[in-house]
Amino acid sequence: MTTHRMGLAEFQALIERDLPMGQWLGFRVEALGDGKAVIRMPARRELMRPGGTIAGPALMTLADCAMYAVVLGMRGDAVMAVTSNLTIHFLRAPKPVDVIAEAAMLRLGRRLAVIEVVLFSEGEAEPVAHITGTYALPGTGHRPSGAVP
Amino acid sequence: MTTHRMGLAEFQALIERDLPMGQWLGFRVEALGDGKAVIRMPARRELMRPGGTIAGPALMTLADCAMYAVVLGMRGDAVMAVTSNLTIHFLRAPKPVDVIAEAAMLRLGRRLAVIEVVLFSEGEAEPVAHITGTYALPGTGHRPSGAVP
Amino acid sequence: MTTHRMGLAEFQALIERDLPMGQWLGFRVEALGDGKAVIRMPARRELMRPGGTIAGPALMTLADCAMYAVVLGMRGDAVMAVTSNLTIHFLRAPKPVDVIAEAAMLRLGRRLAVIEVVLFSEGEAEPVAHITGTYALPGTGHRPSGAVP
Amino acid sequence: MTTHRMGLAEFQALIERDLPMGQWLGFRVEALGDGKAVIRMPARRELMRPGGTIAGPALMTLADCAMYAVVLGMRGDAVMAVTSNLTIHFLRAPKPVDVIAEAAMLRLGRRLAVIEVVLFSEGEAEPVAHITGTYALPGTGHRPSGAVP
Repeated sequence: MTTHRMGLAEFQALIERDLPMGQWLGFRVEALGDGKAVIRMPARRELMRPGGTIAGPALMTLADCAMYAVVLGMRGDAVMAVTSNLTIHFLRAPKPVDVIAEAAMLRLGRRLAVIEVVLFSEGEAEPVAHITGTYALPGTGHRPSGAVP
Repeated sequence: MTTHRMGLAEFQALIERDLPMGQWLGFRVEALGDGKAVIRMPARRELMRPGGTIAGPALMTLADCAMYAVVLGMRGDAVMAVTSNLTIHFLRAPKPVDVIAEAAMLRLGRRLAVIEVVLFSEGEAEPVAHITGTYALPGTGHRPSGAVP
Repeated sequence: MTTHRMGLAEFQALIERDLPMGQWLGFRVEALGDGKAVIRMPARRELMRPGGTIAGPALMTLADCAMYAVVLGMRGDAVMAVTSNLTIHFLRAPKPVDVIAEAAMLRLGRRLAVIEVVLFSEGEAEPVAHITGTYALPGTGHRPSGAVP
Repeated sequence: MTTHRMGLAEFQALIERDLPMGQWLGFRVEALGDGKAVIRMPARRELMRPGGTIAGPALMTLADCAMYAVVLGMRGDAVMAVTSNLTIHFLRAPKPVDVIAEAAMLRLGRRLAVIEVVLFSEGEAEPVAHITGTYALPGTGHRPSGAVP
């Protein structure tokens, strides 16, 4: 049995169709494959927080989407995968520019995937946030529960 | 010196003015005081995810807002406080109903505040998610950095 | 099929037999049942850190053991369960006295258990640390991997 | 004012003197400098867990020590720094061999340091665990609190 690996265009379409917050925030998939993903969040005035920086929840939303992209880029059949946990460390105030998420699979197991994401302000070398998280993968032949399996 | 403690109406006004994602998601502050906060996220069809549940990032956004409320409910001068880190465990698929965040201060230090949040689907006894996180508080007499202090 | 629920004495014996660090640290199970566990770490001079407080890793070891106790107290067959992730927030410097871990199951799923632990210095009302974590449970009829399943 | 940067030998001596669990576990500093640290935990039969792998708390202890090394390697005056939080994801069952911690500073602020650690079984390319954490740094001219500042 070969495993379907979701590509860039297919995941972009999934955002538009199934991820309302990603759609609202205008996420654009820039790369997907080989256990990695790059997703861009365009700068928007509405996301600014007191202090002129970008709202933390927008960064968390971006990171969660990038984790999901990495999972589907390796297990395209796992559309029903759900976030099991996520930890974010905010490192620096993002500039009021686009934010780029670079995600990589740390470990793809049979039932769990652990992913690392680093967020950058466009054009900056130092990251603005670091995220690790776990996705619970749907099993073969049983229905997903949408929560902790 | 007495410390200003932000109340329910004042924090609701702050959401409308300064927290674009909280405003978009329609957050309603239901209680604020004594180191606790309760915030409601009304059910919305747009937030539904594949599987008929509520998007994880909406839950994270709600939790972050509830943490911020608890901080300002005890340190009303700390509007420039920023999230330093946040960990969320998703426990059960939320029902397609309102989600209620119940937040409590675990430790208010001089420079850091650690807060716990539990999320419930309205009318359910078992939580849908558990969150802990840290806010970095602006110091007295120095300007906030908007990032890790 | 009835599920074996491990009791206090049985888990204490497991510490002595299988958990070398818990044995070295002298953990004593004080309660186990109903999705809860209480474990005591006796004060020891060797655990003191610069500043006269207790070493953070000893607290993490205690928390991890208490999570495991809660799991086995509900699923006594799951001896091969392994920690999938753990997040600890240190809240206050522990006094140089015994530390008490109070653990509770947040969600027992078929494949994952999420547990919360609060640590107290004996005789103190305010917690010294807060922990959440996930245990991966061995499945029925397949061999445990000892890592992310 | 120049900042003292602690070197390998000085940090090894600190382990022997001040970190009882690190001493018990036989930690050996292999590199320290430029915002990075490498620490080795020798394989020991006593650390084995059911299933023939290494106890998770030993891995957490190693990670915490490596974070502390990175901090002191950049701020040698910050001996009173304390762990504020730590998140670990266990990725693969460690082999019964030495474990190597590779730690790097993600962000050194004035009051907080955020550090990433990756743990490897000796001779293996894939990591066994991933850790992020925050150290709270003592301020200049005020006494450390030993807890959340």
